[in-house]
Amino acid sequence: MQIIKTVAEMKDFVHKIKAAGKSLALVPTMGYLHQGHLTLMREAKAACNTVVTSIFVNPLQFGVGEDYEEYPRDLTRDAQLAEPAGVDAIFAPAVAEMYPKGYHTFVDVEEITNHLCGRSRAGHFRGVTTVVNKLFNIVQPDKAFFGQKDAQQVLVIKRMVADLNMNLEIVTVPIVREEDGLAMSSRNVYLTPEERRAALMLNRSLQQAKAAIEAGERRGSAIRDMIVQTIETEKLANIDYVEVVAMSSLEPQEKLEGEILIALAVRFGKTRLIDNIMLTV
Amino acid sequence: MQIIKTVAEMKDFVHKIKAAGKSLALVPTMGYLHQGHLTLMREAKAACNTVVTSIFVNPLQFGVGEDYEEYPRDLTRDAQLAEPAGVDAIFAPAVAEMYPKGYHTFVDVEEITNHLCGRSRAGHFRGVTTVVNKLFNIVQPDKAFFGQKDAQQVLVIKRMVADLNMNLEIVTVPIVREEDGLAMSSRNVYLTPEERRAALMLNRSLQQAKAAIEAGERRGSAIRDMIVQTIETEKLANIDYVEVVAMSSLEPQEKLEGEILIALAVRFGKTRLIDNIMLTV
Repeated sequence: MQIIKTVAEMKDFVHKIKAAGKSLALVPTMGYLHQGHLTLMREAKAACNTVVTSIFVNPLQFGVGEDYEEYPRDLTRDAQLAEPAGVDAIFAPAVAEMYPKGYHTFVDVEEITNHLCGRSRAGHFRGVTTVVNKLFNIVQPDKAFFGQKDAQQVLVIKRMVADLNMNLEIVTVPIVREEDGLAMSSRNVYLTPEERRAALMLNRSLQQAKAAIEAGERRGSAIRDMIVQTIETEKLANIDYVEVVAMSSLEPQEKLEGEILIALAVRFGKTRLIDNIMLTV
Repeated sequence: MQIIKTVAEMKDFVHKIKAAGKSLALVPTMGYLHQGHLTLMREAKAACNTVVTSIFVNPLQFGVGEDYEEYPRDLTRDAQLAEPAGVDAIFAPAVAEMYPKGYHTFVDVEEITNHLCGRSRAGHFRGVTTVVNKLFNIVQPDKAFFGQKDAQQVLVIKRMVADLNMNLEIVTVPIVREEDGLAMSSRNVYLTPEERRAALMLNRSLQQAKAAIEAGERRGSAIRDMIVQTIETEKLANIDYVEVVAMSSLEPQEKLEGEILIALAVRFGKTRLIDNIMLTV
């Protein structure tokens, strides 16, 4: 497995793969890999000859007061995990390699970025779409793999790819959870033991909502209120948002039908966690 | 020569060209072709095996009150001109093919779009970079050819390609002029005979400025004032801007040195014309 630091070397690597007629998958990450990432890599390897994973903590997608500086980084550990998951090359550029002096180009997806995380994290998705657009141009993958945990991110990236006529397929992989149900996240390492325990309420509230819908509840507001009440029994939890929305538009739904996304973001101390569940009603 | 109307068919055409190992050039236009466009096409054909020209009057780059509706269109005539210039395929999509319902993605280049035409045409360059980004993804050319007449457009597109790590080379071709010096433009057909005559002052003022710099003038403001005064002798002329700027940043230069761009936009009746000259001092 190679570790590549520059755009030029990455493009050389890609050029050779393509000249050999091999298919190429990209798994974009911010590193500090967990089983969720490794699942993406294994799926990518099953689908394509060659797998590149990018490890880049993208400053552009962090807002003022967010955890850009503290975000956990460990390239040595990441490399040890990625290789057995089937990764052929890690692309780990420096910030100045991705955003050199004089950098001034940004990609924006409007509308669906105004909901959910886009509302509480100004500029976040502009950072995501810009860096992902660059990574797609650098690596030129046939397929790129994203986790369903970042449900809105997946929709935004699919919108960008369709709108800009980009030449690749976006593959979404289900959320991977710890045994106790907590969605895997690089940010879980921030949690104190008490916060870690309190955070179990997220998945529990989503499962409760799912059961209520399966039992016939069709009012979006009732589902939302139920989740809010469940999470608020946990005094360490501070809700950022809980939303019951249409999967396609991310607009809140009062009468539940079709593909529904229930998404939430909740703070435990300084740590903001997200989780979600998709349902077809 | 093929005329292709859909993105899917265009991508099929490109796929076959690439599978045959041929090189591909793109000449993006808004149609109503003149010798300036045909020069781009001939240069493209000299550089690459296959030439695609796009003909698309892009609504996104026209502002409110601009000439989107009136912009001249004649695909039959364009096809007759393009084929002998070496074009292998015309890509002429409908607006709904490029911007289908639910379209929400935009590409922005900041800073250099705040000067010159960017100041008087709000949103213009966002429209240009968005459509050109799409065309590059659809046609995937090795090289794309642009005319120097739209000097700022060329800089903005080069910035986008560099910043987003796009995989092509931008080739710039010098301004093509009528025998009397008027820069060729599809908009020249709007001019009345009197306006057409008055518009000669544009190139004349640029040539005068060039002569003054060659004679030793190094003050940007003096050059600018000289051009303004020359154009204002023509009462049909309404100046939008005259600027003496650094080629790289488009920032006004008082002490002229290095690569200089003198650019202007002037209205004659309803018609807004642009022209420019590049100089190395």
